[in-house]
Amino acid sequence: MTGTSGENGASGETGLSRAPGEAGDPVLAIDIGGTKMAAAVVDPDGRVAAYDRIPTPNRPGTDAGGLWAALDALLDKLLADAGAPRLAGVGAGCGGPMTWPAAEVSPINMPAWRGFPLRDHLRARHPGLPVRVHNDAVCVAVGEHWRGAGRGHGNVLGMVVSTGVGGGLVLGGRLIDGGTGNAGHIGHVVVDPGGPPCGCGGRGCLEAVARGPGLAAWARGQGWRREQDGDPTGADLAEDARRGHPVAAAAMRRAGHALGVAIASATHLCDLDVVAVGGGVSQAGPLLFDPLMDAFRLHARMEFARRLRIVPAALGQTSGLIGAAALVHAGERYWSAD
Amino acid sequence: MTGTSGENGASGETGLSRAPGEAGDPVLAIDIGGTKMAAAVVDPDGRVAAYDRIPTPNRPGTDAGGLWAALDALLDKLLADAGAPRLAGVGAGCGGPMTWPAAEVSPINMPAWRGFPLRDHLRARHPGLPVRVHNDAVCVAVGEHWRGAGRGHGNVLGMVVSTGVGGGLVLGGRLIDGGTGNAGHIGHVVVDPGGPPCGCGGRGCLEAVARGPGLAAWARGQGWRREQDGDPTGADLAEDARRGHPVAAAAMRRAGHALGVAIASATHLCDLDVVAVGGGVSQAGPLLFDPLMDAFRLHARMEFARRLRIVPAALGQTSGLIGAAALVHAGERYWSAD
Repeated sequence: MTGTSGENGASGETGLSRAPGEAGDPVLAIDIGGTKMAAAVVDPDGRVAAYDRIPTPNRPGTDAGGLWAALDALLDKLLADAGAPRLAGVGAGCGGPMTWPAAEVSPINMPAWRGFPLRDHLRARHPGLPVRVHNDAVCVAVGEHWRGAGRGHGNVLGMVVSTGVGGGLVLGGRLIDGGTGNAGHIGHVVVDPGGPPCGCGGRGCLEAVARGPGLAAWARGQGWRREQDGDPTGADLAEDARRGHPVAAAAMRRAGHALGVAIASATHLCDLDVVAVGGGVSQAGPLLFDPLMDAFRLHARMEFARRLRIVPAALGQTSGLIGAAALVHAGERYWSAD
Repeated sequence: MTGTSGENGASGETGLSRAPGEAGDPVLAIDIGGTKMAAAVVDPDGRVAAYDRIPTPNRPGTDAGGLWAALDALLDKLLADAGAPRLAGVGAGCGGPMTWPAAEVSPINMPAWRGFPLRDHLRARHPGLPVRVHNDAVCVAVGEHWRGAGRGHGNVLGMVVSTGVGGGLVLGGRLIDGGTGNAGHIGHVVVDPGGPPCGCGGRGCLEAVARGPGLAAWARGQGWRREQDGDPTGADLAEDARRGHPVAAAAMRRAGHALGVAIASATHLCDLDVVAVGGGVSQAGPLLFDPLMDAFRLHARMEFARRLRIVPAALGQTSGLIGAAALVHAGERYWSAD
């Protein structure tokens, strides 16, 4: 064991990954999704020292190299604006699926990247630095555990209820990766075996019921309309529910019930301390959380399960960046791979 | 941020818990249930060097001290017969619920023990030795991971489908305890939110559908009768299913479907490598496992989930004893508490 101190000093680190960074250096954090690409310089205490973002150039005709060039330019500009800081490493969250830890990524909403070797590209950009990539929802969960709603608790499920329903699982104080880096897929816990078909090919998954577009489609079927054009999102629906639209409110009850059932199952299996729920749909507030808690209380009857705290995520838009930074800043807890 | 945190650390071993035993010494292993109390001397390689058992003296009128005296005598006799070996420690599995790691036990099927301080009693019997107690189904799962069907895999769910449905969870090669030692309660994963009421007070739990007595009750409602007197068990039902009784076979399909849904949810959440299914109901063989796999394949559609291997438990009746021994023999993987 070499002599580095602070949070970088635990198992699973290679000599290379320890070399150039010092405990006090910031991490370059990246959050890649179908809508935007964001990047930040994140200090060891989780503070975002610099931040920038661009819309993902997801136009038809953009190829894999074009997407990478846009990200590369974003990172160059961010680091230049931040005064070219010495970095402890690079952490990135990206939409799945991906191989892990190699991070050959095939984000559902970024068709130009199919098996794109993101980790290799970032390593080539930052030779000698540790580079760590994980699922974007896992990074949100890590961020909430490290510096957000789950801070100080050993057993935390972080959830993102948005276009999809994703998550990440921290147990015994450590990020759980599972056999292939895919642990945390709470969106595909079955909440109703005879329920609606899911995009995964299954049936009755939480995501099939509670994802924003699924809720919006259900609400449209019940007569809900949105004034502006375009595809309304879960956040739009949540906003209308807050304004008192009865169908939008019913959609939130539907989502809340499914979330409560899935969370009851998750805590019976994993004996959680805290579940942090974020994402656009969660912006409905009590209109979502009240039916969620009703369903949870109906199904989570074991004494150890009733103690669970279910809370809104605390970090907002930057949670994924802060979690990506934690893959390096607190690798002993959040990075089990090479 | 200091270098340590309040969360469960990696090894959590105290000096005391390592002290008197040598690496080569055996462990006294104990398995306590409502039907029998079993004990064994288990070598560091998992071999059962000596074994004995008694029926649990669960008669009305037996008090907490009477139960303890029976166990105490069993242990005295076993150790005398084995030549009074020097021990590395004591490991025990006991029916839940219990506080953990203090192991004040209140086994559902042993009404004379309510908050009985089992760990304290065992420590007083074996002063200076590490004494570790966990849920009996957790010990079965640990046994299957250490020396059984899950050996060599990092991410394993061990299940017992019997009078109840219990389990234990090993992720990243370590036993997952959760916040209160209750992780692994696969029996209370919700498989049908509108399903039958469960003994826990919830509804539609796996256990409500697939536990032996629940299946037998369902089968009796469909006209199934057993020749001998007494309450037929899940193992009886499994035996009749193998003999071709159509209602018994239908009950196994019912159980198999519920198991397949619960396992799909579990592997989506935890990205498992192996599920090992044991207990009396599992003795139905393909009559249970075929519908289980059908339901699993219907619901486990994510690519990482389809790789899961679902296999019968390998160790049989001694799995709980071998797992209890592993709490001491392989504490770095299976014991995170003090």
